[in-house]
Amino acid sequence: MITWNNLDTLDSYKELSKASRVNLAEVMSGENGAERVKNYSIPMAEGFSYNYAAKAVDDDVLDALVKLAKEAQLAEKFKALYNGEVVNTGEKRLVLHHMTRGQLGDAVNADGVDKRAFYVEQQNRIADFANKVHAGEITNAAGEKFTTVVQIGIGGSDLGPRAMYLALENWAKKNNTFKMEAKFISNVDPDDAAAVLNSIDVAHSIFVLVSKSGTTLETLTNESFVKDALKKAGLDASKHMIAVTSETSPLAKSDDYLAAFFMDDYIGGRFSSTSAVGGAVLSLAFGPEVFAQFLEGAAAEDKLSANEDVLKNPEMLDALIGVYERNVLGYPCTAVLPYSQALNRFPAHLQQLDMESNGKSVNRFGEPVSYPTGPVIFGEPGTNGQHSFYQLLHQGTDIVPLQFVGFKNNQIGTDVVIQDSTSQQKLCANVAAQIVAFACGKSDENRNKNFEGGRPSSIIIGDQVNPGSLGALLAHFENKIMFQGFLWNVNSFDQEGVQLGKVLAKRVLAHETDGALKVFSDLLNI
Amino acid sequence: MITWNNLDTLDSYKELSKASRVNLAEVMSGENGAERVKNYSIPMAEGFSYNYAAKAVDDDVLDALVKLAKEAQLAEKFKALYNGEVVNTGEKRLVLHHMTRGQLGDAVNADGVDKRAFYVEQQNRIADFANKVHAGEITNAAGEKFTTVVQIGIGGSDLGPRAMYLALENWAKKNNTFKMEAKFISNVDPDDAAAVLNSIDVAHSIFVLVSKSGTTLETLTNESFVKDALKKAGLDASKHMIAVTSETSPLAKSDDYLAAFFMDDYIGGRFSSTSAVGGAVLSLAFGPEVFAQFLEGAAAEDKLSANEDVLKNPEMLDALIGVYERNVLGYPCTAVLPYSQALNRFPAHLQQLDMESNGKSVNRFGEPVSYPTGPVIFGEPGTNGQHSFYQLLHQGTDIVPLQFVGFKNNQIGTDVVIQDSTSQQKLCANVAAQIVAFACGKSDENRNKNFEGGRPSSIIIGDQVNPGSLGALLAHFENKIMFQGFLWNVNSFDQEGVQLGKVLAKRVLAHETDGALKVFSDLLNI
Repeated sequence: MITWNNLDTLDSYKELSKASRVNLAEVMSGENGAERVKNYSIPMAEGFSYNYAAKAVDDDVLDALVKLAKEAQLAEKFKALYNGEVVNTGEKRLVLHHMTRGQLGDAVNADGVDKRAFYVEQQNRIADFANKVHAGEITNAAGEKFTTVVQIGIGGSDLGPRAMYLALENWAKKNNTFKMEAKFISNVDPDDAAAVLNSIDVAHSIFVLVSKSGTTLETLTNESFVKDALKKAGLDASKHMIAVTSETSPLAKSDDYLAAFFMDDYIGGRFSSTSAVGGAVLSLAFGPEVFAQFLEGAAAEDKLSANEDVLKNPEMLDALIGVYERNVLGYPCTAVLPYSQALNRFPAHLQQLDMESNGKSVNRFGEPVSYPTGPVIFGEPGTNGQHSFYQLLHQGTDIVPLQFVGFKNNQIGTDVVIQDSTSQQKLCANVAAQIVAFACGKSDENRNKNFEGGRPSSIIIGDQVNPGSLGALLAHFENKIMFQGFLWNVNSFDQEGVQLGKVLAKRVLAHETDGALKVFSDLLNI
Repeated sequence: MITWNNLDTLDSYKELSKASRVNLAEVMSGENGAERVKNYSIPMAEGFSYNYAAKAVDDDVLDALVKLAKEAQLAEKFKALYNGEVVNTGEKRLVLHHMTRGQLGDAVNADGVDKRAFYVEQQNRIADFANKVHAGEITNAAGEKFTTVVQIGIGGSDLGPRAMYLALENWAKKNNTFKMEAKFISNVDPDDAAAVLNSIDVAHSIFVLVSKSGTTLETLTNESFVKDALKKAGLDASKHMIAVTSETSPLAKSDDYLAAFFMDDYIGGRFSSTSAVGGAVLSLAFGPEVFAQFLEGAAAEDKLSANEDVLKNPEMLDALIGVYERNVLGYPCTAVLPYSQALNRFPAHLQQLDMESNGKSVNRFGEPVSYPTGPVIFGEPGTNGQHSFYQLLHQGTDIVPLQFVGFKNNQIGTDVVIQDSTSQQKLCANVAAQIVAFACGKSDENRNKNFEGGRPSSIIIGDQVNPGSLGALLAHFENKIMFQGFLWNVNSFDQEGVQLGKVLAKRVLAHETDGALKVFSDLLNI
C-alpha cells in the first residue's frame, strides 16, 4: 500500500536531520580517504560507476538514507509508476517514458492498446523510414538523397535530442555510422530559424516537426517559417517534412507530412529523448541501430534503478544524497560538470529535466510544502568550467554540491603528448584533482590563497561517451530526479508554472493589456 | 580619501536592511504599475534603457541604496580604478580594461608607457593585419586567402570572444561585413580540437593563440595539437598562427607566429574581450571597423557608469539592487535571460565574468567576510528557457532574481506572420509577459495552478544586437560586477580559487599522489 507523505512528516527524515555532520576534508584525507573512494562506489550499466566518496556522508548518514528510502517507499513508487499507475496525478496521466526502452514490470494497457507494443511499433516505423531515407528510397522530389535533418521543436523536443545528437556526432563519424548532419530550430526569435535555413541546403533537407499537442506556438511558427523558405525555393514542403506528435493532434493525419510518428500523453516532453521525439532525428542522423543501442543503455540503467537495495541503486542513492544536501545541509544549487566536450549541452538538458520536474511549491495533493524542493541546476563541460565559474565553487561564500562525469577514453582518438601526458590524461587528471581540491581544500596563511574544502561532489566514471553509455547516463539522471520528486512528494511530471506567461503573451499580442504590461509592450514596440 | 570597508560595517547598509519590504505584486498592479514602468528606467548608451520597475524596490529602498553608494564611495572607487590606482591589490596590479576602449580620466603611465597609447597601438596593429588578410596581402604559403580564423584559448580567452562572435555573426552577414568564419578550441579534451580541425580547411585557416602568460597548459596543448595537424597536412605552422599574449611572455618574440599582438597584466582574462584577445578574432571575422564600433559602444556605457548620480547610472543601480537582493533579501542565484538567439552564449560569458570576479570569501585585505558575496549566475536565451527551467523560476520554493534583455528588432530581418503577429512580436510579447507574470503572479484556487508572484526582474531594452549595442551591454555587466565587488569589499580582479586544482592535476600527471587522489587517478586510468 503506497502512501504519499511530505518529506518533513517522515520519522526517518527527522532522524536524518539529527545525524552528525561529516567533516569531508577529514574523512577524505589519508588512507581513510583512499578506502572511501574504493568502497563508496556503485556499479552502473555500460561500465559506469557512481562514486560518492567525496559526498559529506558516512555510514550513519547512509543508514538514515536507507531508512528514508524505505519509509518514503521509493522502490514501491517506482514499481507503481512503471506498472502503469497514474503517478502524474495533476494531469491524471500514466508516466511511461521507461517503456519506450523496455518492459520493467507488467504489461500496461491504456487507450485500448498495449503501450509497450505501441512504442516498439513507433520505433520500428521510424527505423524503417530512416533506412529508406539512407538507402535513397525516400528522396526529395528530384529523386535526390536527403543530406540534412532539421528538428523543429522547443523545450523537451529540443534540448534532449540536441544534447544527445551533439554527444554522439563525433562518435558516429569515427565509427562510420554517421548518416546525416542534424540541425535544430527552437527559439521563436526569427533569427534562429533564418540562421539555420541560411546554413543548409534546403533542397536536400528533411524537417522533423515535433509537438505532442500540435499546438505549441513557437514550433508552429517555425514550421511556417520553414515552409515559406521551402516554397520560395520552389519546393513542395510536404515532401520535406515529417511530424512527431500524438495520435490525437491535428498534425497526425495531415497531408502536410511525408509521415507521422507518435508519442502520447504518458511521456513528458523533458522525458521524451528515448521516444519518437529523440528517435526520429537520431535515427536519421546516426542510423536506427545507434538509436537502439542508446535505448538499450537506458533500459539497463532503469533495471538498476528498480533495485530495492539502496546501496546497489545508483539513482536512488544519488537522489537521497541530493535531498540531504538540499534539505538538511541547505544548499540551494547543484552544478553538473561533465569532463567531455561531447556532453557540452548535456547540462542544459539536465537543467530542464531537473528544474521543470521538481521546481514546485505544492505537493501532489496541491498543498504547499514547507521545505525546499528542486535546486537550481547549471553546468558547463570541464576543463572549460575550471577557467570560468570554478572560482566561486572553490572560494565563494555558498557551497554548491557538484556532480562530475568523467570518461577514461575520448571519442575521436586523436591525441598529442605534451609534457609527458596526453590531452586525455590531462582531462582525467583535472577531474580527479578537482574532486580532492573541493573536498580537502588546502590551508594557507594568506587567506586569499586558502581553500576551506568541505565542498561535496560525486563522480560518474565511464569508459567513453557512446550510444549505450549515453542512454545509461540519461536514465541515471531521469530516475534520480524521479526519486527526488517522490521524496519531496511533488508531481515531477506536470509543469503548470509555464502557463501564466503563455496566457499573458497571448494577451499582449491581442493588444488586450493594461497597466504595467501595456507599458512594457509599448516599450518593446509590440 | 578612499576607504575600503566591509559591507556590514556601513551605516547605510544597516539602514537598507531595515527598510520596509516592498510587496512587488501589489506595486506592479494597476495604474501604479504602469507609472513604475515609466519612471523606474534609466537611459543607457546605444539606445538601451535599464528598467527596474519589476524589482522589489520603492523610493525608500532607493534612498537607502543611494546612501549606500555614497558611503561605499562607488563613484570615487571607479574613478580611482580608471585613473590607474592599484585596485587589484592581491596581485598588485592596475585594472585597465576600460582603457582598451577609451580614456575616461587621466592618462595612465605604467611600465614606462602611456597605457592608452599602448592599447590603441595594438588595436591599430590588429586592424592593419586584418585588413591585409582580407585584402589577400597576407596569405597562406600557396598565396591563397585565409577563409577561417580559429581562436585557441580557454576561460576569458574563449567565452567572451566566442559569445561576441556568435552575437554578431548574423548581423555581419546581413550587413556585408562578414569576412571569415571563426571557430574556437578551448577544452583540453582532445575531441574538442579534433572536431574543430575536422570541420575546417586547415590550409586556409589562420589560428589565434591566446594566452597572456604564454603558459596556460590547455592552450599550449591545443596549440601543439593544431601544429601536428598542420604538419600532417604538409603546412608550415608558423605561416598559419598569430599570438595574443603579454610582451613578456615566451610567445611574444617567437618565430612560431606570423605576428604577435599584446595585452598586459592590467587586463584580467574575463575582462579582455575589448582588448587584443577579442580584437584579433573579431577584427579578422568581421573587419576592424566592426570591432571599433563594439569598442565605441562599450566606451559610451563606461561614461555613464562614471556618473555620481546613482539614479542616472544604470550599472551602479543594477549593482546596488543585486546586493540588496543577495544580502538583505537572501537570494542565492541570479538568472540572465536574453530574448535573442544571437546572445545564446552571452550568459555563459557572464557566468565567468560574475562568478570568477565576486565568488570570494575574503575581503581585499584577506580577511574573511561574514556575508554572502557573488551569486550563482546561469541563463539561456528566451523563449527557449521558458520551455525549460522557468517552471522553477515561477513556482519553485526559492526566489531567483532575473535579468532580462530584450530587443525591438532582430538581426536578419526575415520574419513570418502567424496568428496576426510576427515571430519578433511574439518574442517581445513573451518577455513583457514574463516580467509581469513573475512580478504579479495570479491566484488560483487550484494551488498547483497558483502563482505567488513577488519574483523580481529587471530588463534592459534595446533596438537590436549590433556591434555598438553589444559593446554597451558588455560594459554594463562588467561595470555592474565591478561595483558589486566594491560593495562586498572583495578584489574582483584576481582568481586564486583556480590554483589548487591546477597544482593537484600536475601532481596526478607526475604520478606523485597518494590517498584518495591516487585511487581516483587509478579509476580514471591515468
